Amino acid sequence: MRAVDLIEKKKRGLEHSRDEIYFLVENYMKGVIEDYQMSAWLMAVCFQGLSDNETAYLTESFVDSGEVLDFSHIAKHIADKHSTGGVGDKVTLVLAPILASLGVRMAKLSGRGLGFTGGTIDKLESIPNFRCELSNEEFLNQIKNINFAISSQSPNLTPADGKIYALRDVTATVDNKSLICASVVSKKIASGATSIVLDVKFGSGAFIKTKEEAKELADLMVKIGKILNKSIDVVISSMEQPLGFNIGNSLEVIESIEFLKGFYGEDLYEITLALAGKTLMNCGLAYDFSDVKKMVDEVIKNGSALNKFRELIIAQGGDPQVLNNYSLFKIGNNKVEIKALETGYISKICALDVAHSAKLLGAGRDIKTDDINYGAGIILKKKVSNPVNKGETVMELYYDDIEKEKLNEAVTIARNSFKISKIKVEKPQLIF
Amino acid sequence: MRAVDLIEKKKRGLEHSRDEIYFLVENYMKGVIEDYQMSAWLMAVCFQGLSDNETAYLTESFVDSGEVLDFSHIAKHIADKHSTGGVGDKVTLVLAPILASLGVRMAKLSGRGLGFTGGTIDKLESIPNFRCELSNEEFLNQIKNINFAISSQSPNLTPADGKIYALRDVTATVDNKSLICASVVSKKIASGATSIVLDVKFGSGAFIKTKEEAKELADLMVKIGKILNKSIDVVISSMEQPLGFNIGNSLEVIESIEFLKGFYGEDLYEITLALAGKTLMNCGLAYDFSDVKKMVDEVIKNGSALNKFRELIIAQGGDPQVLNNYSLFKIGNNKVEIKALETGYISKICALDVAHSAKLLGAGRDIKTDDINYGAGIILKKKVSNPVNKGETVMELYYDDIEKEKLNEAVTIARNSFKISKIKVEKPQLIF
Repeated sequence: MRAVDLIEKKKRGLEHSRDEIYFLVENYMKGVIEDYQMSAWLMAVCFQGLSDNETAYLTESFVDSGEVLDFSHIAKHIADKHSTGGVGDKVTLVLAPILASLGVRMAKLSGRGLGFTGGTIDKLESIPNFRCELSNEEFLNQIKNINFAISSQSPNLTPADGKIYALRDVTATVDNKSLICASVVSKKIASGATSIVLDVKFGSGAFIKTKEEAKELADLMVKIGKILNKSIDVVISSMEQPLGFNIGNSLEVIESIEFLKGFYGEDLYEITLALAGKTLMNCGLAYDFSDVKKMVDEVIKNGSALNKFRELIIAQGGDPQVLNNYSLFKIGNNKVEIKALETGYISKICALDVAHSAKLLGAGRDIKTDDINYGAGIILKKKVSNPVNKGETVMELYYDDIEKEKLNEAVTIARNSFKISKIKVEKPQLIF
Repeated sequence: MRAVDLIEKKKRGLEHSRDEIYFLVENYMKGVIEDYQMSAWLMAVCFQGLSDNETAYLTESFVDSGEVLDFSHIAKHIADKHSTGGVGDKVTLVLAPILASLGVRMAKLSGRGLGFTGGTIDKLESIPNFRCELSNEEFLNQIKNINFAISSQSPNLTPADGKIYALRDVTATVDNKSLICASVVSKKIASGATSIVLDVKFGSGAFIKTKEEAKELADLMVKIGKILNKSIDVVISSMEQPLGFNIGNSLEVIESIEFLKGFYGEDLYEITLALAGKTLMNCGLAYDFSDVKKMVDEVIKNGSALNKFRELIIAQGGDPQVLNNYSLFKIGNNKVEIKALETGYISKICALDVAHSAKLLGAGRDIKTDDINYGAGIILKKKVSNPVNKGETVMELYYDDIEKEKLNEAVTIARNSFKISKIKVEKPQLIF
């Protein structure tokens, strides 16, 4: 078998065998197949696609390229949740404590963010002293003790995905659904999850732009789960406007704490409930959706979800005082308020623009080694369908020392990120 | 400008500007753009194609990546001929002396062969002591003195094409017409040619399989010539059966010498005449095709073409005695005759199979550092449409010490390379 012949085969739209997929991935990891051959193959895949079986083989080969965590001696069900990424997406920060307080064991491996805003790990690291680099032993023990742990991804898990993902990022081969599916699902399987819930987002602030594409990706992931004998459930949700009110690392953690205290916006609540429901039902802890709502509302009301978040912070070395004293967070010292220029209804808030603006303020990074400013970000004072008066604040921008040009650009983008309509606007549909 | 954005752009089927093409090629040569990005772009090009303008920019950028030879102080017209490659294709060896003897100045840079059989340089190097590594000065002086020179390609000419060609070879991105066109035409322009004739071959023994594809490539090359202000003419010819009778390095030189002595097969004569005609008319040395035939027949008949070949051999250090003493060539010591198993007409000789068999006998190489056996090869005793009797020899295989398995495979392939029909077979069309 030669790499060049396999590239040619995919280029001509033919299907690879399991052996061929393993040959490519294993030899790429050994350095026998070079980056330039893998990137040509990836580009051919972007045009010709992979069949369901090929996608399953690729997923398996990623899993088999590294360590696989096993929690079967701790619990029958190990839950995991993954979002394909969006702006203001702090669902993990509220969902994980809620589920843990309801007895779900959750082994969450998360990434740092690249692109517009931080990842879950960046958000948690905005809590003073919070530590995300857990050893496998620490990770396991914490799940045993408090039901959940959130750790940064170990390079020992799915190293083939890590190497290939880095290559896709610089060769414009990110947006193929089979490659995305193999990347996401392999990580979940390798991290020991048996019950996986995926939040597939589409819209301006997601890398999937249309509902149809999101549906295709969701269907594929469920299929691959079936082939690989894992329970995979999917929620498809809109990412046209940012999720919740706050965008930026510290700001999103504060919104999450408020949520667990019972103060939440409708959209974040709705999606959290949907994902919680799938997980609770998968794990046999709830039987229908009305159960789920009762259970979730209860652990928020009685404070046990917030308490689980406190346990998480303590277990991972963070300062639990933040829960009652938000001044312990770093928040941008400067603020610009963006005001409405006319009276009407907010008809659009472009998530991509908001993210772009937040990144310019310092909330995101371009390359792995860039610094992130945990205190930078944006608070939305209005969401789509809200009425607004001329002169009222629509959003607040928080930042520290940044170049004047960057600030001006951030302000301009934020100012143009929303639209006001004279006519009443319906609340947009969030979950599909 | 970022490479990844340009890859994305081509992936989405958009057209690059001249600046973008130059950015890619120049930064690739500087090592700023990596192999894995270039290969992803090349694969995207295989799917989305390049426009005529993009192809012209790519061609120019290859030319501009290195030295450009200039013969304008020697002659108004500098001719060059290029074949897209075929089995038994020794046209350069007969065409160049004929044209030189008719006063055409020809600066021929040629390659070594990779794949099934040797390139023109390999063939010439089967002449004892023949030297193909000419300096630019030697090359120039020889053209001044005897009208022509055949030298191996200098790495100083079109280095970008050299680097990209090597990458295409291992990433299954060879067969795109724009990439082929830019590679071929840039080399001809950089080597100083003003009048270029291309022999575009299609069929089992060519890398272009259909007449339609050959026509597309030919049209593109003529168009790019027009855009870049060079006279490019094209002959489209069939490569279903090998050209002429002999395949293999020494054997092809011997057939060429015989040709120049007036003993030639019809197909090699026909294609030589067609290419000579285009060149002579381009250079203003002939006015119509009947002129051309007279001129070519004359220089063969009066020995001046053979004499030009002698001058070439002497000028490049080879032993001119070979012209009259073929035993000075290395010819395989062993011979296997492949005989007809039935009486009828030869209806097919698969050029690819014959080439494959010849390569197994030692006539070709896989990688640049492989040895080549100049004496190995195949002589066809019959061509398509020839009648044949049961037991008559159809081809002879020449070889030296090779592994038994290789020999068996070569014989089996040769035996299956031709078909015999009970019904009379028409002579196939060669030139289209």
